[in-house]
Amino acid sequence: MQEIKNVGLLGGGVIGGGWAARFLINGKNVTLYDPAPDAEAKVREVLDNALTAYHRLTLAPVALRGELKVVSSVAEAVADADFIQESAPEREDLKRSLLAEASRAAGPDVVIASSSSGLLPSRIQADCVNPERVIIGHPFNPVYLLPLVETLGGVKTEDQSLETAEAIYRSVGMHPLRVRHEIEGYISDRLQEALWREALHMINDGVATTDEIDEAVIYGPGLRWAFMGTCLTFHLAGGEAGMRHMLHQFGPALELPWTKLEAPELTDELIEKMVTQTEAQAGDTPIRALERLRDNCLISLMQGLRGQDYAAGHTLRQYEELLYEVSHGAAMTEESDLSQPLRLHQAQVLPEWVDYNGHMTESRYLQVFGDASDALFRFLGIDKSYHADGFSYYTVESHLRHLREIEEEAPLYTTTQLLAMDDKRMQVFHSIYDGRNDRLLATAEQMLLHVDTGAGRACPARSDILANVERIWAAQQSLPKPDGAGRAIGQGMN
Amino acid sequence: MQEIKNVGLLGGGVIGGGWAARFLINGKNVTLYDPAPDAEAKVREVLDNALTAYHRLTLAPVALRGELKVVSSVAEAVADADFIQESAPEREDLKRSLLAEASRAAGPDVVIASSSSGLLPSRIQADCVNPERVIIGHPFNPVYLLPLVETLGGVKTEDQSLETAEAIYRSVGMHPLRVRHEIEGYISDRLQEALWREALHMINDGVATTDEIDEAVIYGPGLRWAFMGTCLTFHLAGGEAGMRHMLHQFGPALELPWTKLEAPELTDELIEKMVTQTEAQAGDTPIRALERLRDNCLISLMQGLRGQDYAAGHTLRQYEELLYEVSHGAAMTEESDLSQPLRLHQAQVLPEWVDYNGHMTESRYLQVFGDASDALFRFLGIDKSYHADGFSYYTVESHLRHLREIEEEAPLYTTTQLLAMDDKRMQVFHSIYDGRNDRLLATAEQMLLHVDTGAGRACPARSDILANVERIWAAQQSLPKPDGAGRAIGQGMN
Repeated sequence: MQEIKNVGLLGGGVIGGGWAARFLINGKNVTLYDPAPDAEAKVREVLDNALTAYHRLTLAPVALRGELKVVSSVAEAVADADFIQESAPEREDLKRSLLAEASRAAGPDVVIASSSSGLLPSRIQADCVNPERVIIGHPFNPVYLLPLVETLGGVKTEDQSLETAEAIYRSVGMHPLRVRHEIEGYISDRLQEALWREALHMINDGVATTDEIDEAVIYGPGLRWAFMGTCLTFHLAGGEAGMRHMLHQFGPALELPWTKLEAPELTDELIEKMVTQTEAQAGDTPIRALERLRDNCLISLMQGLRGQDYAAGHTLRQYEELLYEVSHGAAMTEESDLSQPLRLHQAQVLPEWVDYNGHMTESRYLQVFGDASDALFRFLGIDKSYHADGFSYYTVESHLRHLREIEEEAPLYTTTQLLAMDDKRMQVFHSIYDGRNDRLLATAEQMLLHVDTGAGRACPARSDILANVERIWAAQQSLPKPDGAGRAIGQGMN
Repeated sequence: MQEIKNVGLLGGGVIGGGWAARFLINGKNVTLYDPAPDAEAKVREVLDNALTAYHRLTLAPVALRGELKVVSSVAEAVADADFIQESAPEREDLKRSLLAEASRAAGPDVVIASSSSGLLPSRIQADCVNPERVIIGHPFNPVYLLPLVETLGGVKTEDQSLETAEAIYRSVGMHPLRVRHEIEGYISDRLQEALWREALHMINDGVATTDEIDEAVIYGPGLRWAFMGTCLTFHLAGGEAGMRHMLHQFGPALELPWTKLEAPELTDELIEKMVTQTEAQAGDTPIRALERLRDNCLISLMQGLRGQDYAAGHTLRQYEELLYEVSHGAAMTEESDLSQPLRLHQAQVLPEWVDYNGHMTESRYLQVFGDASDALFRFLGIDKSYHADGFSYYTVESHLRHLREIEEEAPLYTTTQLLAMDDKRMQVFHSIYDGRNDRLLATAEQMLLHVDTGAGRACPARSDILANVERIWAAQQSLPKPDGAGRAIGQGMN
């Protein structure tokens, strides 16, 4: 495919603005027509959001590389366009006349896509010049982030037009889904609309509120729908026998009033279709492996949402606080053996810690050492209330040696030796070992400074904490200095 | 609430096994009855999966802290239980008689919950002794990970029984949703079932396959459903005017055949209910802030899935490869000014980089330095094919100084000075600056070693790469050594 440079957009609302952002960030020039007087300001607002989002989304180089021009007619918007995307309000007459006008002003081969979320392409292409290049390209809000775009043509559309549009969508990071039959609502909105209408019924009947309806999705089925659709999900719910067992178990429920939508009859033919198609989806992957994939995805999602402290991420955060409260093993007692480096923390290398070489990425070493320091703080008796009072140890300096590569899933544990201390400082030496063979993988020497976080300056630790530090120091000060302590970088070079 | 110790479970399938795992990991003893001869083996398999999952899910201390006993009668399973959860197949007669038997054998006050996904509690509690303690507690697969559990009672259920169960569910990390009206299918499964029946219709009509139906969810609406339900999502799709505009725009579509489910009439009363309830959900948060929250959640999800290289995460990964290919600015040219430390990388502090103190967590410093090294490698001409050929620079040693706290959203840039080199090594000094005021925030001195990754040993860099390193060295070798270079930890202490 020849790369396109100029995109003509018709409509600059929530959807049109989203298209503008996606194309501009991907280096396409955008010429946009919208009759609203504040169209440009609104598009620029979406663009700001989108650019912020892309800088968070990826460390790959992204920037506003295309130029935005807002014009006052359809003809100007499409005159130099290599591709046209229409996002006017969802009215058939309006779209039909807009597309017709665009088709007369644009080059004869330029593909024209409509963002319609459910109208039939055969109808809206009807008045166009060269209707064979008119297609539906239905995106989802926010258009600059969500990858899905449904593509379909009308009776007059040529396949080549769909292929051209799909290549363009892929080049700006999207996932085109070809809808092979021309149906109203297409595929995605039929599913969304069924759920939406059922929600409206429940609210209309007064049996649930919008908030309850949303909760019923986001803490449960919605987490799965982020990466596994309803068909593959139900295949897994069926256990080893998959979809067939699932249909056997829940087939009778299709006749119950569990929704206001009447189900199709569960004929043998439909059962075979469901089973064959879902098995094709699962491919050679055994159910157990799919379950692990599902679990890994769910965990990554919940960890992502924990960062936002929202929805299931909020639940996880609260649960973790509970787990730390329940755990009593971590604090120092009279019986603790302090005479050797302290083994206070263990972890397993997660898939997201691993880089393209298949090894734990370098910053995760420091994360594990940081977790070892946190374990030391808990061991000393530093808890949430200590932090709430405005005191904390900060790391001011670290010296790391990456001695061996660490691969995914490796079980790790750490040891911590106190090298020096005073009332404000601890100089510690952490080591990471492989839990399977006790092999030393990495070391970190760190200087930890006790800080009054409100005043922003160093201050002595509280007396009970300091007493615990001194107990460790009394037990460890005569231990030999570990290999690598006190080093500077590049000894033996230059 | 008094903490419970012993849980009686009836049924050890996919759901019952999931309950067993969740309770055992949270320190409850589980006594389980299931008539299948291989019940224990199956439950232990789920338990293995769950334990692996929890070790990935959280760094908080989790372990198998409860004891599992599989018994051969209902009476044994519930005799010592402080709480009972039934997860038999979804047949009313079966559940009804199981619960009745359990109620006779259990203590009179012990709450009995059924995992039913849609049966009416009034009917299944009918034959129980002390039916006031019988409730529905409907979980979602995998039960050990998904937080949602719908709770509701029948006509004879006391509120206190629901509250007791909800407290127990919360203590094991779940999110109870009280269903306030006794309806078949409850809330969550009515929504799921509407979508499912629509999917069955599409497959029955031959207009889409299970694979297409799943794609139509996971690349678009499903990503939003992981954290924002359909009501709040549509509120945002309406722009500034929210749900009211949304209903105005898409109200007419409710009469179109966009699903086989007939919608309720969109009366003024229904519109007011929808608008009032959604506005209450949004609370004081302006639409723009909700949009940013939505974007942040979507980004975190897509990044999480990228780690799994699955669904939208696969799309993102492919897109990033494209972005790196398109970007040409990063490579060294004849014109590059090498006489000063090289400014090769910039970044913005993301919300998930920030710890409970509101500052960038320590491992993220090393991540930014690692990204600066990656930018240096690209600058030198090292690309994917170089890695594919089996060559790479590894970090073997790092010395970090955390000079200032860095807060969320801060724009950062890095500079890199070459301190020494030979054909296998580069000794570099990276600095992180605040982009708003050029203040120095942190430094890292690193030793980078060129490695034959297949053989697992150091080797000289390819001649063209080495020539570029030498060009930088020629330009920088007479620069003054930066402050902090060559330091060891703890100078001035002891």
